[in-house]
Amino acid sequence: MLSLLDLRARIEAGTLTPAGAIDLCRAAIAAREPELRALVAMDEAAAIPEAGPLAGIAVGVKDIIDSAGLPTQMGSSIYEGWRPRGDAAVVARLKRLGAVALAKTTTTAFASSDPTGTVNPHDPGHTPGGSSAGSAAAVGAGLLPLALGTQTAGSVIRPASYCGCAAVKPSFRLIPTVGVKTYSWALDTVGLFAAGVADVAHALALVTGRPEIDRAEAASAPRIGLVRQDFAEPPEPEAESALMRARRAAERAGARVTDLALPPELAQAWERHRFIQNYEGRLALAWEYDAHRDALPPRVREHLDVGDGISPAEYDDARRHGHHARRVLKGVFADYDAILTFSAPGPAPATLAFTGDPRFNQLWTLMGVPCVNVPVPGDRLPVGVQVIGRFGDDGRALAVARMIEYALRS
Amino acid sequence: MLSLLDLRARIEAGTLTPAGAIDLCRAAIAAREPELRALVAMDEAAAIPEAGPLAGIAVGVKDIIDSAGLPTQMGSSIYEGWRPRGDAAVVARLKRLGAVALAKTTTTAFASSDPTGTVNPHDPGHTPGGSSAGSAAAVGAGLLPLALGTQTAGSVIRPASYCGCAAVKPSFRLIPTVGVKTYSWALDTVGLFAAGVADVAHALALVTGRPEIDRAEAASAPRIGLVRQDFAEPPEPEAESALMRARRAAERAGARVTDLALPPELAQAWERHRFIQNYEGRLALAWEYDAHRDALPPRVREHLDVGDGISPAEYDDARRHGHHARRVLKGVFADYDAILTFSAPGPAPATLAFTGDPRFNQLWTLMGVPCVNVPVPGDRLPVGVQVIGRFGDDGRALAVARMIEYALRS
Repeated sequence: MLSLLDLRARIEAGTLTPAGAIDLCRAAIAAREPELRALVAMDEAAAIPEAGPLAGIAVGVKDIIDSAGLPTQMGSSIYEGWRPRGDAAVVARLKRLGAVALAKTTTTAFASSDPTGTVNPHDPGHTPGGSSAGSAAAVGAGLLPLALGTQTAGSVIRPASYCGCAAVKPSFRLIPTVGVKTYSWALDTVGLFAAGVADVAHALALVTGRPEIDRAEAASAPRIGLVRQDFAEPPEPEAESALMRARRAAERAGARVTDLALPPELAQAWERHRFIQNYEGRLALAWEYDAHRDALPPRVREHLDVGDGISPAEYDDARRHGHHARRVLKGVFADYDAILTFSAPGPAPATLAFTGDPRFNQLWTLMGVPCVNVPVPGDRLPVGVQVIGRFGDDGRALAVARMIEYALRS
Repeated sequence: MLSLLDLRARIEAGTLTPAGAIDLCRAAIAAREPELRALVAMDEAAAIPEAGPLAGIAVGVKDIIDSAGLPTQMGSSIYEGWRPRGDAAVVARLKRLGAVALAKTTTTAFASSDPTGTVNPHDPGHTPGGSSAGSAAAVGAGLLPLALGTQTAGSVIRPASYCGCAAVKPSFRLIPTVGVKTYSWALDTVGLFAAGVADVAHALALVTGRPEIDRAEAASAPRIGLVRQDFAEPPEPEAESALMRARRAAERAGARVTDLALPPELAQAWERHRFIQNYEGRLALAWEYDAHRDALPPRVREHLDVGDGISPAEYDDARRHGHHARRVLKGVFADYDAILTFSAPGPAPATLAFTGDPRFNQLWTLMGVPCVNVPVPGDRLPVGVQVIGRFGDDGRALAVARMIEYALRS
């Protein structure tokens, strides 16, 4: 993979120019993209800033995120050839930092669950996950040092786990969603993919203008709650094994890891995530559903059909459960610096017809808390673990994740 | 003014066709629009549904709200000729109900405070208010029975007060903002303008699919807290007089009106509203600010310059104050069914160079609570009063507003 921090260090040392760094990406894309199919469009004539803290960093932009000068097609024929006038807020911010929006990356239609043509960089017979398929695959394959995704259920953490890269789904609204196609305004969260946890932490600090995110350090003996999310179907052995390796690594690094059974309010909220996603999706995609229903692929259409049958009262009830569970979770974090849990049920499924199951991600998206995927080395196909912090404390979540990532490698 | 309920009653009685109702609007537009300058674009070939609970209802759509087939130009040369592909969620919903998106209405650039060319329907030397200038003026002048606006500070309730029509700024996110240009994601709220309170209540119930909003009734002796918002500069005599007339009308109708001094947390939140608006505006309009700064008119540019200087810590502090004040306000509503206060500091200022002061609106936008403008008859230039309900109880706020509106007329 291409490490953002490594590229930046070489640029700052004068051994690599920003244009040279972009050329590295172009060469990697030329070599691997024909098989990977992670990109929808490339900016062949992109201006390459010479200065800025992200100069020389090529970014992949999920194709539901507006980028001036490139099409934004939402993974759907309904938006074929569509070109927004301007950049999404996060893209404008990245450009201001010197980064280059080099490519649009594949997305399932409207960031739902109909698979893209992208394959897993570690085995082309396996899904890269979704919905941020192209961003995860492009970073995992070493095409790009940074990519943008979004998560409404599990669309950042799960594909990062499948593709073997680091990722952060930050606290809700820490990165603006302005210029990002909405599926669920209460859930949609912009996230970042990069090679390692330090790379995503550095990028998040710059994107948000909050340097403390990058400077945070884990406590000397952080209190980590190991959560199995027993409310969901159990994971596969590879995910359990990765969690155990991460636990032992954390303990070697000095963390105090204890099993944590979540209060029942969290399971109750988890069960209701889908009511919020489907109800709001039906409203958010009202034009597409009403005017172009036949052009919607089957899975998103089915989700919207389900959403069409949810009453405002059911939705309000789900929102109230989510609100209540957020307060309960705040109490849980009084005793823990971070939660350690599964990123996905197992390695990437051996199919291109299914993007995988977000059951270990939905709760945390609804809670709005920062989630980090830490790749766990060892298996043929990547598996990651998820480090979760309290709302608004993205720096600490990333610091604990970095500690575990480092300990796993040593 | 054209009453939505009156038009619908005539259509249901068979004495008016939907096409005939649209023709009434076209005739009114032909007569008054040359002077009023409330409209940016008209859909001359709009399809007119024969059926649906809003068949025959022509809607004005503020020009920051996407509408397929019509330009959406944000009141800014940066978006000249811009045509979104689809409808905003609220526009799609209105069309599904049978309404016709007949016209785009003027907006200050990006719904900020640089005046439009629209004049007040009651005196062309006076502002119609802003930012939803065209929607308020078009309804107040009787051009349209329904119009969409947005409020981030006071952009729905204030222009409604100035133009003499009813309006509702519903609970936060009760109407989706999907497809609406963002200024501040924590504040932007879609609202409705119509002739009377019953008209906006009926429209809101249909738009949200929540019939209980329209069926709610005020308690037999509702407890109303009269709030003067002493933290802001005092109002002009006309606004004070309108508030007193509304108070007496409410008491005649059986309400128990008592003076209510708000807890200090609410004044503290009010002082911080602008930090949220300016900080988020700077992020939301990052592309416009970075790539087209010279094309921004002076007031919005100045607001964004201010936003550029606000630190994340100041913003976080403002958000925390807002969050805390919302909980305090919830406690206040344990003892009151509604709050009655000023809609605006006075009648529309005698200028077209200033859209008026939102100081009596900002707090309530930040609180996310439903606000209703009730026109108060009597003065040469309209003045309204504001009825405010608890979060999520839009029906009760509208019921109390309807009660006061009725009592004011009798």
